[in-house]
Amino acid sequence: MNIYFAGSIRGGRGDQALYAEILKIIAKYGNVLTEHVGDKKISVMGEGDVTRRIHKRDMDWLRDAEVVIAEVTTPSLGVGYEIAKAEEWGKKILCLYRKIEDRSISAMISGSDKLTLIEYKNLDDVKIIIDKFLKIKL
Amino acid sequence: MNIYFAGSIRGGRGDQALYAEILKIIAKYGNVLTEHVGDKKISVMGEGDVTRRIHKRDMDWLRDAEVVIAEVTTPSLGVGYEIAKAEEWGKKILCLYRKIEDRSISAMISGSDKLTLIEYKNLDDVKIIIDKFLKIKL
Repeated sequence: MNIYFAGSIRGGRGDQALYAEILKIIAKYGNVLTEHVGDKKISVMGEGDVTRRIHKRDMDWLRDAEVVIAEVTTPSLGVGYEIAKAEEWGKKILCLYRKIEDRSISAMISGSDKLTLIEYKNLDDVKIIIDKFLKIKL
Repeated sequence: MNIYFAGSIRGGRGDQALYAEILKIIAKYGNVLTEHVGDKKISVMGEGDVTRRIHKRDMDWLRDAEVVIAEVTTPSLGVGYEIAKAEEWGKKILCLYRKIEDRSISAMISGSDKLTLIEYKNLDDVKIIIDKFLKIKL
């Protein structure tokens, strides 16, 4: 099973370490296509590559994925973009979200019926949520 | 001409006053479907409505639009989502961006060949960019 993990890069790297932990959990279930999202060497300035090449690579990976898992706590144009493409292309989508005081998740995500949005508090929750989600899928 | 304006709501309202000014510029060229994006009464907590209803309304508007104009400086899941849907549905898309130090725009936006991304500094720039973009379109 190919799994596309989406997390914020240029939108903000505050959750990078968490993405790395989620990637470790996901890697037990299949082939993770986007391991760089958890790489602490990649800053908010993004990867040092031509953006057109990054776009093409990521969209190719997204097409190849059966499942998309997105961490959506940090607002990110790229993550929103990837989720919408994944919906249009009929992928199974899980969005993981931590509630932050005085903030709320985009209605484009919480109001969509083409994805599963689940709130979590910690990595133990994430393990259970991902396990359930991927076992239902299999 | 129906124009869909996209700007951050739950991603952050730092540019709300600017959105209101851009909406005034756009309104001269056609029917703007999303005037609430510039409404100062709408906070980062979003509109007080069921998110599924907001999602359906916005997606209906997006389908009805010939043109999408997005202000993409504030990272936003919803704006990224709307841009990707607009691409998939063959809309003409203009993304307006202010360069901010130590930040860069998502490669999903800057690397896409299905939209026009233009940097601006002030509203005078915006007027010229929108005028040129919409006249080419007409």
